Amino acid sequence: MLTLYHSPHSRSTRIIGLLHAMGILDRVKVRIVSVARNDGTGGPDPLNPHPEGKVPVLVHDGVEIWESSAIMLYLTDLFPASEFGVPQGDCQRGRFLSWLSWYGGVMEPVIVFNHMGLEDPILHATFRGMPEIIARLHKALEQGPWLMGDRLTAADLLIASPFLWFKDATPDDPLIRDWVDRVANLPWQGAVMDYETWHMAPA
Amino acid sequence: MLTLYHSPHSRSTRIIGLLHAMGILDRVKVRIVSVARNDGTGGPDPLNPHPEGKVPVLVHDGVEIWESSAIMLYLTDLFPASEFGVPQGDCQRGRFLSWLSWYGGVMEPVIVFNHMGLEDPILHATFRGMPEIIARLHKALEQGPWLMGDRLTAADLLIASPFLWFKDATPDDPLIRDWVDRVANLPWQGAVMDYETWHMAPA
Ligand SMILES: N[C@@H](CCC(=O)N[C@@H](CS)C(=O)NCC(=O)O)C(=O)O
Ligand SMILES: N[C@@H](CCC(=O)N[C@@H](CS)C(=O)NCC(=O)O)C(=O)O
Repeated sequence: MLTLYHSPHSRSTRIIGLLHAMGILDRVKVRIVSVARNDGTGGPDPLNPHPEGKVPVLVHDGVEIWESSAIMLYLTDLFPASEFGVPQGDCQRGRFLSWLSWYGGVMEPVIVFNHMGLEDPILHATFRGMPEIIARLHKALEQGPWLMGDRLTAADLLIASPFLWFKDATPDDPLIRDWVDRVANLPWQGAVMDYETWHMAPA
Repeated sequence: MLTLYHSPHSRSTRIIGLLHAMGILDRVKVRIVSVARNDGTGGPDPLNPHPEGKVPVLVHDGVEIWESSAIMLYLTDLFPASEFGVPQGDCQRGRFLSWLSWYGGVMEPVIVFNHMGLEDPILHATFRGMPEIIARLHKALEQGPWLMGDRLTAADLLIASPFLWFKDATPDDPLIRDWVDRVANLPWQGAVMDYETWHMAPA
């Protein structure tokens, strides 16, 4: 059995988006939990198995899977027919793994520092900054329409997610803006937002 | 063909360690490149395909794979007989993917902030701090001897790597110290250090 611990309008929303995209929402039991929110509301939920009270966490037959990129890779490998991943053996598999890893290891930290206005030479040497993020995305999207060329994958849903969340943070680059719009306008995005609003409503 | 772009005594050393561990150093062509070092020496190498001049980068038949965790996953999937990964279909696969993602997305940022003495409530909310890293590792190692229990995997080589590099940064936790020692004393580690020293020598 697959259970996703989810909190609406949070970093786990991108997993709900992937489940919609893959058409497998009926294969995963979603448990709504509270999390501590930036505005001071909410708090860790005793039902949530994440040791720090974070979401998302996916549990498959008792095994916990955490970190958005790991969960996305796991789901796309488990349901290859949905074609939102790049299967092992496909020559583009390595690029797909790299985009997923790069999101968590580079892009998300840089977006957080940028949002905080935090500039520091050690952080810059380690993670680089927004110009390098933009250059990476721009270069990939020159071959577009998606990060993996013709294939829309979970990497697009993960990597566009901060810009769906903070529209104003979208880099001022036409290729990137158009791609974020394409992701935002995918046919199931309305259903994702309805799902989130419905589950956010007080019981 | 597999080519690894590597700079001795850097973050790519853990990939050399994995190649030794897996016994596949003869299957990968290693190209030594220079990188900018923290002490101000070195600099980006025009031979290095990484857009920011970083290492490691693995190239497989023309496809670039970057980020240490992605490279480790790719290699362990490609050479399953070495048993340093956890293959798709194995019930522990999800945990293995999570450890690899968590390293880049949480542990490495936290170690960098800690090293810099950088404390900030937003960084803490997003990544948490060393106490949470220690709690995670400690809990996994209670079932030890390795992070995945009885199985020594690439996750141990990746996640122990900062403590092999900065011995003094090893948390003062007996389970973690013993595990770092176990990783440091794996039979091929001497060969890895010899390899690095040899390739560091001026031509
Ligand atoms: N690196 C994790 C980050 C998870 C994360 O920070 N989730 C937030 C939701 S936006 C959370 O649960 N925050 C509550 C808290 O930090 O207590 C991932 O990508 O899955
Ligand atoms: N997140 C990357 C980090 C790679 C990285 O920062 N490599 C360092 C080597 S220690 C580098 O190439 N530094 C040279 C530079 O930043 O120009 C990974 O884990 O592979």
